[in-house]
Amino acid sequence: MLERIQSSSDLKQLNDQELTLLCEEIRQELIRTVSENGGHLASNLGVVELTVALHKVFNTPEDKIVFDVGHQSYVHKMITGRYGQFGTLRQFGGLSGFPKRAESEYDCYETGHASTAISAALGFSRARDYRHQNHRVIAVVGDGAMTGGMCYEALNDAGNARTQLTVILNDNEMSIAPNVGALSSYLTHLRISAGWQSTKKTVRRLSGFPVIGKLVYRTIHGTKKILKSMMLHNTDVGFFEALGFQYFGPINGHDLKSLEETLEQAKKNNGPCVIHVLTKKGYGYEEAEKRPEAFHGTPPFYIETGNRMKEPDFPSAGHRMADRLSEIAEKDSRVIAITAAMPLGTGLDHFGEKFPERLIDVGIAEEHAATMAAGLAAGGMRPYFAVYSSFFQRCYDQMIHDVCMQHLPVIFLLDRSGIGGEDGQTHHGVFDYSALIPIPGMTVLSPADADELCDMISWTICQDGPVAIRYGKDGDRLPAGRTADRGFVPGRWNVLASGKDVKLLAAGGMVRTALAAAEILRKQGVEAEIVNCSSIKPLDEEYLKQTDGSPVITMEEHMTAGGFGEYVTERCRQLGLKAPKDCIGISDMFIPHGKHSELLEYAGLSADQVAGRILKVLGRTET
Amino acid sequence: MLERIQSSSDLKQLNDQELTLLCEEIRQELIRTVSENGGHLASNLGVVELTVALHKVFNTPEDKIVFDVGHQSYVHKMITGRYGQFGTLRQFGGLSGFPKRAESEYDCYETGHASTAISAALGFSRARDYRHQNHRVIAVVGDGAMTGGMCYEALNDAGNARTQLTVILNDNEMSIAPNVGALSSYLTHLRISAGWQSTKKTVRRLSGFPVIGKLVYRTIHGTKKILKSMMLHNTDVGFFEALGFQYFGPINGHDLKSLEETLEQAKKNNGPCVIHVLTKKGYGYEEAEKRPEAFHGTPPFYIETGNRMKEPDFPSAGHRMADRLSEIAEKDSRVIAITAAMPLGTGLDHFGEKFPERLIDVGIAEEHAATMAAGLAAGGMRPYFAVYSSFFQRCYDQMIHDVCMQHLPVIFLLDRSGIGGEDGQTHHGVFDYSALIPIPGMTVLSPADADELCDMISWTICQDGPVAIRYGKDGDRLPAGRTADRGFVPGRWNVLASGKDVKLLAAGGMVRTALAAAEILRKQGVEAEIVNCSSIKPLDEEYLKQTDGSPVITMEEHMTAGGFGEYVTERCRQLGLKAPKDCIGISDMFIPHGKHSELLEYAGLSADQVAGRILKVLGRTET
Repeated sequence: MLERIQSSSDLKQLNDQELTLLCEEIRQELIRTVSENGGHLASNLGVVELTVALHKVFNTPEDKIVFDVGHQSYVHKMITGRYGQFGTLRQFGGLSGFPKRAESEYDCYETGHASTAISAALGFSRARDYRHQNHRVIAVVGDGAMTGGMCYEALNDAGNARTQLTVILNDNEMSIAPNVGALSSYLTHLRISAGWQSTKKTVRRLSGFPVIGKLVYRTIHGTKKILKSMMLHNTDVGFFEALGFQYFGPINGHDLKSLEETLEQAKKNNGPCVIHVLTKKGYGYEEAEKRPEAFHGTPPFYIETGNRMKEPDFPSAGHRMADRLSEIAEKDSRVIAITAAMPLGTGLDHFGEKFPERLIDVGIAEEHAATMAAGLAAGGMRPYFAVYSSFFQRCYDQMIHDVCMQHLPVIFLLDRSGIGGEDGQTHHGVFDYSALIPIPGMTVLSPADADELCDMISWTICQDGPVAIRYGKDGDRLPAGRTADRGFVPGRWNVLASGKDVKLLAAGGMVRTALAAAEILRKQGVEAEIVNCSSIKPLDEEYLKQTDGSPVITMEEHMTAGGFGEYVTERCRQLGLKAPKDCIGISDMFIPHGKHSELLEYAGLSADQVAGRILKVLGRTET
Repeated sequence: MLERIQSSSDLKQLNDQELTLLCEEIRQELIRTVSENGGHLASNLGVVELTVALHKVFNTPEDKIVFDVGHQSYVHKMITGRYGQFGTLRQFGGLSGFPKRAESEYDCYETGHASTAISAALGFSRARDYRHQNHRVIAVVGDGAMTGGMCYEALNDAGNARTQLTVILNDNEMSIAPNVGALSSYLTHLRISAGWQSTKKTVRRLSGFPVIGKLVYRTIHGTKKILKSMMLHNTDVGFFEALGFQYFGPINGHDLKSLEETLEQAKKNNGPCVIHVLTKKGYGYEEAEKRPEAFHGTPPFYIETGNRMKEPDFPSAGHRMADRLSEIAEKDSRVIAITAAMPLGTGLDHFGEKFPERLIDVGIAEEHAATMAAGLAAGGMRPYFAVYSSFFQRCYDQMIHDVCMQHLPVIFLLDRSGIGGEDGQTHHGVFDYSALIPIPGMTVLSPADADELCDMISWTICQDGPVAIRYGKDGDRLPAGRTADRGFVPGRWNVLASGKDVKLLAAGGMVRTALAAAEILRKQGVEAEIVNCSSIKPLDEEYLKQTDGSPVITMEEHMTAGGFGEYVTERCRQLGLKAPKDCIGISDMFIPHGKHSELLEYAGLSADQVAGRILKVLGRTET
């Protein structure tokens, strides 16, 4: 049936039974494709009925749907003309795992980071009003993203603007990890006061039935009557009403009929309203229901067991970090770890197992996390805030204003730095050096591997000012004999291999590329010195001063503008030294999605490309 | 009496009458000093009784008070041992207008940007708990700052943490401009439902009495009885209770007795609570009560009339921008202006007078403003978001993620860029080039004067991608004959003066300094070419390629790291051109408060210093 659905109008032709079958087909397709390509599964299984109902009730693409974060847009993609390409999901050159305007007119707005959808949707609503148009605007937001302050800023503005804006609050009682915060308790309170808890239990029980192999799916007709009585206004909805929103709910997000009825009602509403929809992450696939965190973003897996096809060869850098931090915390009671809804992704779950009271999960709220960390530090603690580099962008001002201006010992652990992979442009961490280096008092580090990361973690505990450590996901080690020597010293670089023809100053993950490029260069008769420049700020000025005449080339997985190479160049000028011959980094473009190796190639940063570029700079032709 | 008050414990000795007299003395001192030095007056007049009551009831400095924004900390400074230095307020080397840890142990946390205090205070609360200490933590937050999402992120986290944290919601029905948003309506609702409106009228009437010359002040004993009945819990407080906070209020913030009683009650509370205090901005000084926006931040003024001692010679750059934008908006209905609570500061009040419906004030919510702008642009409008450079730091991620990644035509107008003045380090805009230049697709501009700014504004309307324009507050023109030629063209620089010995590539406000430095150089026999490099990205590559052998020196009012000079240097390397001989900018340090000229001197950027440095670089000795 999926092949026949190309648009919103095709959906409108289907009867109830066909829609139910369609949902089943979508689920199977989701599970099959993600099991092969990897991707976000649990969230998409949770919004199958909701997405179908939205496109059935609203007139997309004239009506605008903005998906918050956007990792739950797979179903949307399948039923808006992209089913045929769905097998290319998250592959280089294929469909993105997030909304992309270039893919379809149904993708009216691109997302990737959380909590932006209500703001963007309010922009669409206002644009519509200014242009005297008449379509509807809908924002689909998970309850996890609702911990982000932007949502509140947008609700506050929208509640005042009093224009049509429908917010679908997709409440699955989870962000990525189980949800935190007072609002989460409040939503629970809404569920309970609406008598929802028992219904939810029914949902759970029904979804437990094995139906087709391991695929479990059932539209819950039995609960319809109970739900209808809940669709009326709740009497105790202070939060949303205080913000000027009309509140509908809670309703069963796996019951197509209830969804359609409520959405039809909301469609007539000309002001701001919130529809509180209850869904279950992973709904219809037992493995994902049981372990929704593991199936939030998953690598390829076996459908029958839910087991990953390939276990990683090494623990992640984050887990190595967390283990070392736990050792330190054992002796130093000042150590506190902070995450913004990512205990698993950052590896801090390892820390939390040992010190549950000393791991603070603030929810998706990076700004608050950074300033709260500054408060902890001012109060005498040693906070370590582990956050993906691209989400760290959210607390850029707090890093400057709260942490660096007071020179407080807050340690930022920037995971997923450099070029990432299949999540694509919103998730690459390639703007962090340029954000960090100009800030006075900030120490900026980039380990070459997880061993060095651990050495740095041990070193940080003796610091009395801010430090940022930038590293990638992988926790593997450099090839034998190439590891950095033990014990990290800031402002000192490590020469990993000597060579008289060129000095390669490599930062972070590029040390590995430099080593591989040096092999290629050797075959061309060029002897390269490889330097692990893990101390970005301060630089190793002694090393720079000692460089003889041989040319210097910097290498980094970061934008060239504002990066490590520019910083070395400027410092060389200040010291009266010769400038690097070349600064290898990412030129002025965004990097798409694909395998990490494909993306390095795309950016011109593969070992082959780097070696070729070096030969050219040195004036040698490849033989 | 003020001379005798050095600490919290001195306050505890005073009886009611003495406290009332003390408040009167504080008001007079506030008005006198700010009338001479300039500064934040209205907000400080509003918190006289509140600050006295806080120090009387709590045991500072053991108990921690975090002032949000911090511009309302003058009273706090006066009664914590700094009365003697109060005359140096906001002067170079003198007291800062914001909390500073180096000044006093009573300043436990530094602020300057809005909405951070609850996060920081929660950090202090948690640190206290981890360290098994027993003091109280208090955050003082204005209702204006409550529109910022960070407040909500912090309330959400704190409401869940259930540790002692007292939030004083200082509700003066204003942020800087009259308050906006649904929460503001909700607070009004709380006031009304508590029967406050009539009391407020009483407050207004009483404060209308002229008492000492133009100084109007009276503690309102008459309203005490009414107020007492309000201090009980309000029955309809959905918002704060939904977030896990106990709510007290509203209470009269100019009645010392009520304040003391409520604070004593809150002191016993071991969980998170909000005390809703109603104050009047400018209370006790009629001119400031009448025009609280004008007296938010004021230059020196005559106490009798409230008139400024010196009117600016030119309209501000912001007003020039807004006037030009209004002309464009006349013809182009897509033009929308956005401010985050700063219509006056950014000059957009001029736009709002002509197009009230097309000026959107989102409150203090820069993140939402940027993403909402992206939504407007995606919906076919042309949004112009005017924001101070240092507050733009708040929407760094949204600029990248929402605006640049979708290449949407959002125009960021970064006012107060470069080194500012008396507001000090949190308000200088010296991290914007480094935030903007590395982002693909972003056009970065820096006009040399307000005429050029207007030309740029006219140019932006034809663009289909993002643009950031960085300018200072002053709207003056370059000396006659030195203005940039009319009609802005990106990627083209203007040679303002020719000279064979050195080329000075100056960005933004540094063009003026370059012209002055060139005069000094001429007397030393050095002929400098002065180039107005108003197009930062793209650079003028044709100009760079045509430079003959004479040395190039870049100049900018920005950190050297990640700035214009580094960008020129890297581009020269890529083009195979000689690097600049020197990049003049701010070295690796934060800049304090003082007069703009003093701070330029501090940073080594005065015309004299720049000329001296150029001579040195050129190998000439000053004669």
